[in-house]
Amino acid sequence: MADIDTAASYPITDVNRVKRVHERGRYDKATVHAILDAALVCHIAYVIEGRPYCTPTGFWREGEHLYWHGSSASRMIRTQGKGVEVCLTVTHFDALVMARSGFHHSINYRAVMAFGTAHIIEDKDEKLALMDRFIDRIYPGRSGLIRQPTPQEFKATTMMGMQIDTASAKIRDKHVSDEEEDYEGVPAWSALYPVTQVIGAPSECVRQIPGLGIPEGMVDFEPGARLDEIMTKTYGKTFDT
Amino acid sequence: MADIDTAASYPITDVNRVKRVHERGRYDKATVHAILDAALVCHIAYVIEGRPYCTPTGFWREGEHLYWHGSSASRMIRTQGKGVEVCLTVTHFDALVMARSGFHHSINYRAVMAFGTAHIIEDKDEKLALMDRFIDRIYPGRSGLIRQPTPQEFKATTMMGMQIDTASAKIRDKHVSDEEEDYEGVPAWSALYPVTQVIGAPSECVRQIPGLGIPEGMVDFEPGARLDEIMTKTYGKTFDT
Repeated sequence: MADIDTAASYPITDVNRVKRVHERGRYDKATVHAILDAALVCHIAYVIEGRPYCTPTGFWREGEHLYWHGSSASRMIRTQGKGVEVCLTVTHFDALVMARSGFHHSINYRAVMAFGTAHIIEDKDEKLALMDRFIDRIYPGRSGLIRQPTPQEFKATTMMGMQIDTASAKIRDKHVSDEEEDYEGVPAWSALYPVTQVIGAPSECVRQIPGLGIPEGMVDFEPGARLDEIMTKTYGKTFDT
Repeated sequence: MADIDTAASYPITDVNRVKRVHERGRYDKATVHAILDAALVCHIAYVIEGRPYCTPTGFWREGEHLYWHGSSASRMIRTQGKGVEVCLTVTHFDALVMARSGFHHSINYRAVMAFGTAHIIEDKDEKLALMDRFIDRIYPGRSGLIRQPTPQEFKATTMMGMQIDTASAKIRDKHVSDEEEDYEGVPAWSALYPVTQVIGAPSECVRQIPGLGIPEGMVDFEPGARLDEIMTKTYGKTFDT
């Protein structure tokens, strides 16, 4: 732990320490941020009356803050009138790894668990700006092309945020790794299958205004492209990493 | 709620009721099972000392039971000597939907939240059989091709299970849906981009025994195929749905 740069890394505590296969753990902010910024969907764990809930939702990062749409957690905050502890997890699934024993079967992945206290964004100007950036983070420049929220829409949308108190990344990025005696001793065909999440060709709205072209901000949305790579590019265009 | 078949559906309570955009909620077991059985990775929420954690891991279903590898939760169970409440969530991300207002931007998805009490599988025969089925559920017949666990490997692996007490599915499967006046009033190009998770061509282990062919059980692992479709097929071969 002595080699951890405290400015560029998250503090390691019992909360975020990677325990199972601990050599896969990373605590530097650059690694954590890169995994977060390549994603659009996260899973958020929170507690209501002692019971855990795990909700998938869209999210994004700004500095050391994470933002997302309100979910059931927002009801709890409204009821309790204060913040609530959450764990926001992002997982990229990169490969299936078939080994010669069950024990060494694995998957390659890049995951982050980020811990903090969620709160509702109450300030109206801040909320409106965040709603625009949520769109722009995915589709650069799009907030300037679309209709702005009506008062009812604005009210119906809850924006949640949290500061990252601590976080850890966990990465497996290896090929088949077997016990030495199994390579020749076990006649089981073994391989790694890459797994990627990709986009297809756009299906235009059937009520498109004739003659409207694809906006410039969509240049990275090439059919067949990896979503994690698109999200990394569009993130960089909006937040100038 | 009167039209819910209690044998074929999960009971609707405050725990599993879909609140936000409630018309997307489904409670029938056929829908919930299909979403679970098309997946290999889930996110599990659990509570340690009042704090929520959200951990990604591999899992599968057998009837009304879900199984996965031990994670931090297993340490807590060992410490506490009893079961722990969890929420196991599966999410398939199917499309990006770009509308003419921020409010109507959306994603298409199929998600399940399953609630229950996790326990460690202590019975050795049951645990060994589950370890085999975890492999076979992904790669049909593979447990018969690979080396069986050593005593150390068996001990180092924690198998967790839970009965589904209740669950709900939430699905969005729609194209662009805007306010009527926005279709002509807002000149923003709008479209749906399909999102799929696919496998690539296998990268064989460099120490493959010469002459070994791809096992018959891998027939569904066609490069370019959707992982959710492969998992649905391989599930059916192992569990004969």
